[in-house]
Amino acid sequence: MKRWYCILPVLLLAGNATLAQRPPSINSPEVKADHSITFRYYARNAQSVIVKGELLTAPVPMTKDTAGIWSVTVPPVKPDIYPYSFVVDNVELADPNNTLIFANERFKRSIVDIPGNEPLVHALQNVPHGKLSYRYYTSTTLGATRTLLVYTPPGFMANGTTKYPVLYLIHGGSDTEETWTKVGRAHFIADNLIAKKLATPMIIVMPYGNVRPRPMPDFTRDMIDDIIPFIQSNYPVLTDSKHRAVAGFSVGGGQTLNIGLTNTDKFGYIAAYAPYTATEEFQKNFSNWSPDAGKINAQVKLFTISVGTEDFLFESVKKNLAMFKEKNIRVKSYIVPGGHTWMNCKQYLATTLQEIFK
Amino acid sequence: MKRWYCILPVLLLAGNATLAQRPPSINSPEVKADHSITFRYYARNAQSVIVKGELLTAPVPMTKDTAGIWSVTVPPVKPDIYPYSFVVDNVELADPNNTLIFANERFKRSIVDIPGNEPLVHALQNVPHGKLSYRYYTSTTLGATRTLLVYTPPGFMANGTTKYPVLYLIHGGSDTEETWTKVGRAHFIADNLIAKKLATPMIIVMPYGNVRPRPMPDFTRDMIDDIIPFIQSNYPVLTDSKHRAVAGFSVGGGQTLNIGLTNTDKFGYIAAYAPYTATEEFQKNFSNWSPDAGKINAQVKLFTISVGTEDFLFESVKKNLAMFKEKNIRVKSYIVPGGHTWMNCKQYLATTLQEIFK
Repeated sequence: MKRWYCILPVLLLAGNATLAQRPPSINSPEVKADHSITFRYYARNAQSVIVKGELLTAPVPMTKDTAGIWSVTVPPVKPDIYPYSFVVDNVELADPNNTLIFANERFKRSIVDIPGNEPLVHALQNVPHGKLSYRYYTSTTLGATRTLLVYTPPGFMANGTTKYPVLYLIHGGSDTEETWTKVGRAHFIADNLIAKKLATPMIIVMPYGNVRPRPMPDFTRDMIDDIIPFIQSNYPVLTDSKHRAVAGFSVGGGQTLNIGLTNTDKFGYIAAYAPYTATEEFQKNFSNWSPDAGKINAQVKLFTISVGTEDFLFESVKKNLAMFKEKNIRVKSYIVPGGHTWMNCKQYLATTLQEIFK
Repeated sequence: MKRWYCILPVLLLAGNATLAQRPPSINSPEVKADHSITFRYYARNAQSVIVKGELLTAPVPMTKDTAGIWSVTVPPVKPDIYPYSFVVDNVELADPNNTLIFANERFKRSIVDIPGNEPLVHALQNVPHGKLSYRYYTSTTLGATRTLLVYTPPGFMANGTTKYPVLYLIHGGSDTEETWTKVGRAHFIADNLIAKKLATPMIIVMPYGNVRPRPMPDFTRDMIDDIIPFIQSNYPVLTDSKHRAVAGFSVGGGQTLNIGLTNTDKFGYIAAYAPYTATEEFQKNFSNWSPDAGKINAQVKLFTISVGTEDFLFESVKKNLAMFKEKNIRVKSYIVPGGHTWMNCKQYLATTLQEIFK
């Protein structure tokens, strides 16, 4: 999806702006064959331009050429998709010349995709592609028309005789319904794993989980009373619990635990990624919890919790794992390197997609 | 789609950032019932914060409170969707707290949606909604897998007996395949007009038109040889020229003229919005043009050119209108108030959707 850049006539741009107001066309980020990256930014009068992000061990200053273009080339980086931003005279912003944006409510960052020598699991590969659809459903719980994204697998037939299992996949705390695809590339991960027959063809539903002011209880109701019925009315899906999964990251991981473990008759698979559980709802559901472990273990085919050892929630997640184990709930843990990042999220999802609906 | 904002625990956010690095949660833009708008931005140490955009006659300075939050309330604005940006100590950026982004390759701006007292033609209304799908097609012309967006109307059946007409809709010069939906709300305009029976149910295909280095000839080939065949293989569509339309804005308007008028056997409807025609391709196709006007007028059911009187291309468009008329090509012009803006684009599209496939 990389764009090609060149000097385009400045008048081509939208808006009645004059030529003088428009910066020159700039190629940023430029990912080289050796996986080094050149970042560029035009600011004739800036005093300082810095690039920062999880791909760098520390922020890196850029230098200005005589045309007012700041740039820096950073050494080769491990292939992955990383967020980054520029800091221009102390003002943080997304790279104006990069169309790839981290979908988020509270910051604007860019993302850079460093391809692997062999295609990574999240890469756009030459395989059959599913369809990613933006749908609008009426939430009676929330009294609003809301957006969700639906991935249907390659070969999907809306009116066919094949019925599909469904994964409900929830983003992190200030993310949006687009973050799992724009940053997490969930649709490409599914395409690639389905092409290799490592994942079962499935529908993936990505709702918007930031229900306020009560994110946990109201979103659980929206999921059960509105989202699942909307999907079941509009797609040919299998409706028993063994063909329904819920997964989510961070706040969405906490929502996953709350939704899944209080509805084990409805979800045969529960996958929490670095779940954030310091919430009233989690306290309410699990602090004086006396679960019927035998029943839950019989209902839930697979319950997993994934976390990175550098994740700021690592200790909290370990406590939750211990709590679930102490209650004799069967839980599989994936403790991996890495932090509370979307680099890790993609790996967690790739693992889940290979484990569910088998 | 307005999000609700409140003070969320800062730890909820993605990334291993510490609390100190995170700005407070901020509601911006806040659109009031009287259509005034409050913009907010957090910057404890900034010297100057300004909001600018086509909704303002001039940039407006913001003022800082003791918590470091800059804000300004601008007087009521005519309901519409407008781009805007902040300028912080001379650095222009999108509003970090607004998820609505102007999809563009060369700048990052936010958009603000001021609802009408009666719903506007582009508003998300309580009507049946079509589906907006992100699809991936192989371009043999360009040797790449490329993205396009496909709107299918409410009630669409992929394998049904109903076959649909198709509008191919092209963005402006530095826009992306998402600009017609993210900024132009083409899918909501179609939903609303179809619900009122003012538009015929149709498929709308929104490709990525910025083919470089030769945007015009190579994109024309991609359209004819790759995009149209992909749609015709994957959707139940009518394939005669009377059920195929092409429309586009600015550079995409120029592409529309080049694609449509050199393929009048394939496009029964051609709609150019503020077309940019100072291109080699336009010169090649139309400078020594001796068209068979009778044949073209018989093939093309409707050829329209729309432009605003304040558009920087207004004089150029008038010359092109005169040229087409001089060649006896039947062309309908819509000269309206307004500039080279996406506010105008939405109106141009709403007009086209009511005219085609009738």
